[in-house]
Amino acid sequence: MGDVILVVNAGSSSLKFQVHEVTPDGTLAFSLGGQVSGIGAEQPGFRARDANGAVLEDRRLQPGDVPDLAAAQEIMAGWLQGHMPGPPLAVGHRIVHGGPRMSRSVLLSHDILDYLDSLSPLAPLHQQNNLAPVRVIFEHWPEIRQVACFDTAFHRTQSPVVERFALPNEYYERGVRRYGFHGLSYQYIAGRLRETMPEVAAGRVIAAHLGSGASACAMVDGVSRETTMGFTALDGLPMGTRPGRLDAGVVLWMLEQGMNHDEIQDLLYNHSGMKGLSGISNDMRTLLASTDPAARLAVDYFTYRTAESIAGLCVAAGGLDSLVFTAGVGENSPEVRAGVCSRLEWLGVRLDEAANAANAQVISGPDSRIGVYVVPTNEELVIARQTHDTIRGML
Amino acid sequence: MGDVILVVNAGSSSLKFQVHEVTPDGTLAFSLGGQVSGIGAEQPGFRARDANGAVLEDRRLQPGDVPDLAAAQEIMAGWLQGHMPGPPLAVGHRIVHGGPRMSRSVLLSHDILDYLDSLSPLAPLHQQNNLAPVRVIFEHWPEIRQVACFDTAFHRTQSPVVERFALPNEYYERGVRRYGFHGLSYQYIAGRLRETMPEVAAGRVIAAHLGSGASACAMVDGVSRETTMGFTALDGLPMGTRPGRLDAGVVLWMLEQGMNHDEIQDLLYNHSGMKGLSGISNDMRTLLASTDPAARLAVDYFTYRTAESIAGLCVAAGGLDSLVFTAGVGENSPEVRAGVCSRLEWLGVRLDEAANAANAQVISGPDSRIGVYVVPTNEELVIARQTHDTIRGML
Repeated sequence: MGDVILVVNAGSSSLKFQVHEVTPDGTLAFSLGGQVSGIGAEQPGFRARDANGAVLEDRRLQPGDVPDLAAAQEIMAGWLQGHMPGPPLAVGHRIVHGGPRMSRSVLLSHDILDYLDSLSPLAPLHQQNNLAPVRVIFEHWPEIRQVACFDTAFHRTQSPVVERFALPNEYYERGVRRYGFHGLSYQYIAGRLRETMPEVAAGRVIAAHLGSGASACAMVDGVSRETTMGFTALDGLPMGTRPGRLDAGVVLWMLEQGMNHDEIQDLLYNHSGMKGLSGISNDMRTLLASTDPAARLAVDYFTYRTAESIAGLCVAAGGLDSLVFTAGVGENSPEVRAGVCSRLEWLGVRLDEAANAANAQVISGPDSRIGVYVVPTNEELVIARQTHDTIRGML
Repeated sequence: MGDVILVVNAGSSSLKFQVHEVTPDGTLAFSLGGQVSGIGAEQPGFRARDANGAVLEDRRLQPGDVPDLAAAQEIMAGWLQGHMPGPPLAVGHRIVHGGPRMSRSVLLSHDILDYLDSLSPLAPLHQQNNLAPVRVIFEHWPEIRQVACFDTAFHRTQSPVVERFALPNEYYERGVRRYGFHGLSYQYIAGRLRETMPEVAAGRVIAAHLGSGASACAMVDGVSRETTMGFTALDGLPMGTRPGRLDAGVVLWMLEQGMNHDEIQDLLYNHSGMKGLSGISNDMRTLLASTDPAARLAVDYFTYRTAESIAGLCVAAGGLDSLVFTAGVGENSPEVRAGVCSRLEWLGVRLDEAANAANAQVISGPDSRIGVYVVPTNEELVIARQTHDTIRGML
């Protein structure tokens, strides 16, 4: 193994990593990846696999072995030292929030770390987790270059009208803006379309990133015009445990009922969405397999609100040429795609049932005015590429 | 003057009334109307005019003369006793919230008043004002029949998916549902289309009620399928002082910043929307006349978000045949209509510039795939008619 880029994605319940090798022609090749899961939970674990999918590690850890993210980092660092040829060329971090200043990935310095730290109130559940491994590496391996790759950066091309809420300017100045998220995924999709279907990439595209988090993004010629997540990851499409679009008056009502901030936050981040609506599960596969009317209602809600948001995004794109499904549900659920698309037939969307059932790349029928595609996303590859590009001039 | 129906619309800052005469053929004819304005404010006033627009009364009152709604009711009652031929056949009240039970207007009883009273937490700023004159009449003129006409009733035809948020069922059971508002206006529009353009009424119509409050409603064959206001009057389109759609995470952030419920409520109901965004005015005419970039931004925001919501509502209607503009801004602002429609050109919307400039009834061009109309609304007439219909069987 030659030079490598290490990709780190630190969340509240898992720490994911990938190693990408820099090939002689300067492109990147995935060589191994894994995650510490169940951080702070009853059943922590550690798994890793190589580029062929062969299992390199599959450990069940004891409850209490991974009480927090710091413990997970130690496990990961120890294992990586035995499986990497030496220190990485650079480490690329997934950072949820780059705030108004970051419109692309950036080499991390202590100053930039301070700026990103100051954004924590904008992403109270994510930003500190994302920054924790940055601090550890600055402390123990200060010679390793680190690059921050942002979920928000891709959307900084959006217009002032799209970025605003109808609130006094003071709030905009204090950071209450529609930043948008899932930008690494959309950037991958935009690049992938450019490589494989350039005429599609050049047009008006809406990409629907449907996973346990979900959003949609309108792009024209690969440039983000609007996305459904705004200030936080709560807004827009319904999600596994988050409600998506919600009347702000509901939060006021909850306060009137005696709920406090933390209770409301926990409800909206962890117990709403598909899980709350169905009362059964946050997992779309479970809901699709269920005969419970509440599961049916949740799936209908998901496809209805997703279709509604896609229709609304057409205003940002000035119409629609192509619709792309990606992420866990988007890539693997013909039922969900069919549900969304049937609600968009008035736009000229027609699926090819067999192609859709097979999760084919092109799933629209010959009579469809809109091309419909399934494109698997790869956020880690985008992080690896951005990281490599960021340090390349400095070699 | 023969038998009359008295219409009462009691808000927080004004008390409006109209008298409609029951003509020999059983239809209604407006005979006079007026309002006490500036309740609790520095400059209260009382104005009334007759069916020909002639001024019957135009009094400036002293600061302190109308400290509250009760004082306004005394002024109105005293004046009406001198200007009505006798007690009205019935009084029709505009009531903002009918909750899940009320799908049409209803003769008021003490039991129903108790039910409506129980809905106050759902409309903390409006319901008690609306109910105040009902209580006064029950007390002083118990023999007069009273009818409640609801802003929510017209939308009770919406499907379970449309009525829900993606929250646990418990919240739905406790009343957190998308009730929708402006129903009296949409009911008027649906009826008016049926009378004047039955082929339009039978199709897929989106009506945009654009006033200081604003919403849009998708109707098929005159039946409400979805509307942009949900649980409260905060959601959906941007408004004079309310933000419309807002990331619920913004409210959580405001709490984290130390704002309390009342401060957030005041900000969102009274200082956001066009007023907040422009920093200039909540009045669209003022913003359109301004050369300030902030005014331009606010107008652009309004037309952009309105177009986006209209596009999203197409999913509820299964497409779009006709678009109707109504209420203050919708009826009188060619610029706003043009701004909204230019953002919907991809849907096949084309305006006739001259017709639009003239506020004509039909403002779409011959090349437009969608018919676009201006239809002045008349909520008071709907209240008078519903009131008359409700008591008619009981005469």
